[in-house]
Amino acid sequence: MVLAVIPFRPENPKTRLSCILDLAEREEFALMMLGDVVEKTTLAGCSNILLSTEDYSLKGATTVVKELGLNEALNEFFSETKEPVLIIMSDIPLVTEENVRQILSVESDCAIVPGRGGGTNSIFIRDPSRFRVDFYGASFLDHMNIAKEAGLSVEVIDSYRMSTDIDEKEDLVEILLHGNGASRRYLESLGFSLSVDKGRVGIKRNSHEQAL
Amino acid sequence: MVLAVIPFRPENPKTRLSCILDLAEREEFALMMLGDVVEKTTLAGCSNILLSTEDYSLKGATTVVKELGLNEALNEFFSETKEPVLIIMSDIPLVTEENVRQILSVESDCAIVPGRGGGTNSIFIRDPSRFRVDFYGASFLDHMNIAKEAGLSVEVIDSYRMSTDIDEKEDLVEILLHGNGASRRYLESLGFSLSVDKGRVGIKRNSHEQAL
Repeated sequence: MVLAVIPFRPENPKTRLSCILDLAEREEFALMMLGDVVEKTTLAGCSNILLSTEDYSLKGATTVVKELGLNEALNEFFSETKEPVLIIMSDIPLVTEENVRQILSVESDCAIVPGRGGGTNSIFIRDPSRFRVDFYGASFLDHMNIAKEAGLSVEVIDSYRMSTDIDEKEDLVEILLHGNGASRRYLESLGFSLSVDKGRVGIKRNSHEQAL
Repeated sequence: MVLAVIPFRPENPKTRLSCILDLAEREEFALMMLGDVVEKTTLAGCSNILLSTEDYSLKGATTVVKELGLNEALNEFFSETKEPVLIIMSDIPLVTEENVRQILSVESDCAIVPGRGGGTNSIFIRDPSRFRVDFYGASFLDHMNIAKEAGLSVEVIDSYRMSTDIDEKEDLVEILLHGNGASRRYLESLGFSLSVDKGRVGIKRNSHEQAL
């Protein structure tokens, strides 16, 4: 059994989407994305742990509260577990069951999924005690180095769907194009749809009828 | 034998990079990216055709000149060929030999590789006479519809490396992080390197020492 650990910070999420979503909408949207991710890790056979900064209940996951930064919380968690761990970000709603199964099936000691822009969107580690995470900044390169220094073999997973973390309004285009889960349905319920202007694809919101 | 058709427009390429590369640099950079792509299609066993708007010589490729728009040129080309065709964009230098082999090995009638932002970065078509292209705008959705209307089965390829077309300065981050070919070496020769500012990864150019 692989533990899927999903860090989640419920308060004031996704601030870079403030230009198009108000606080209540961002909170709901973050939950929808989280739900999409947990659905796929569950289908792939993982046992889910929500690593949260506050007590929070989510169907299909056990919540572990750590009032620590992301890196400190994960590294403390690693020191306490001996099972293989899949860390997966809560803001990659395009992830599929097949994506998760692919990561879990690698033969190397760990697998790293880069996010666009230098980040890391998922890490699979067979023996968490031999690894530590260092998110923020160019974390993909940092994690490659940490694995190398620990003598761990690494497979880098090449996936558009998993590399797409949702932070900016432009990222919502990807959900409306390629999503098929709760986060897409939520955006559509808010009136968002695709708009094409001068050959570029953007989004518009019906209540405004204005390309963003 | 699969024909890899690579559309290429040598004059004034990659205008959205004008903020950081002058015309001569953009021309050279576009050529380096093209070279990276052609290297991988060649390794994967393709015969390469450069579909260009003007006569142009490239090692490892036969140039076909068509003074037409991209869609018109490709669709005219399709009507003249009976072999399987792989259309692949010249600005996806992160593509690997394995990526190309994966596309060519699909069992469906065609394979489509979405680009970030709604575009299409590669299409494999077993029988080009049954397909037509419609690039620009949300071409991924258009191509999915065209295949559906033609009764063709489609496999969508999930690849970060192939979805990453290089248009904006932010895209150069991806090359400096994940590239290993001529286009990365060219950027480094110009003095570009990664810079991390407030947790976000960007690029800087040594001659300026300024985060872009």
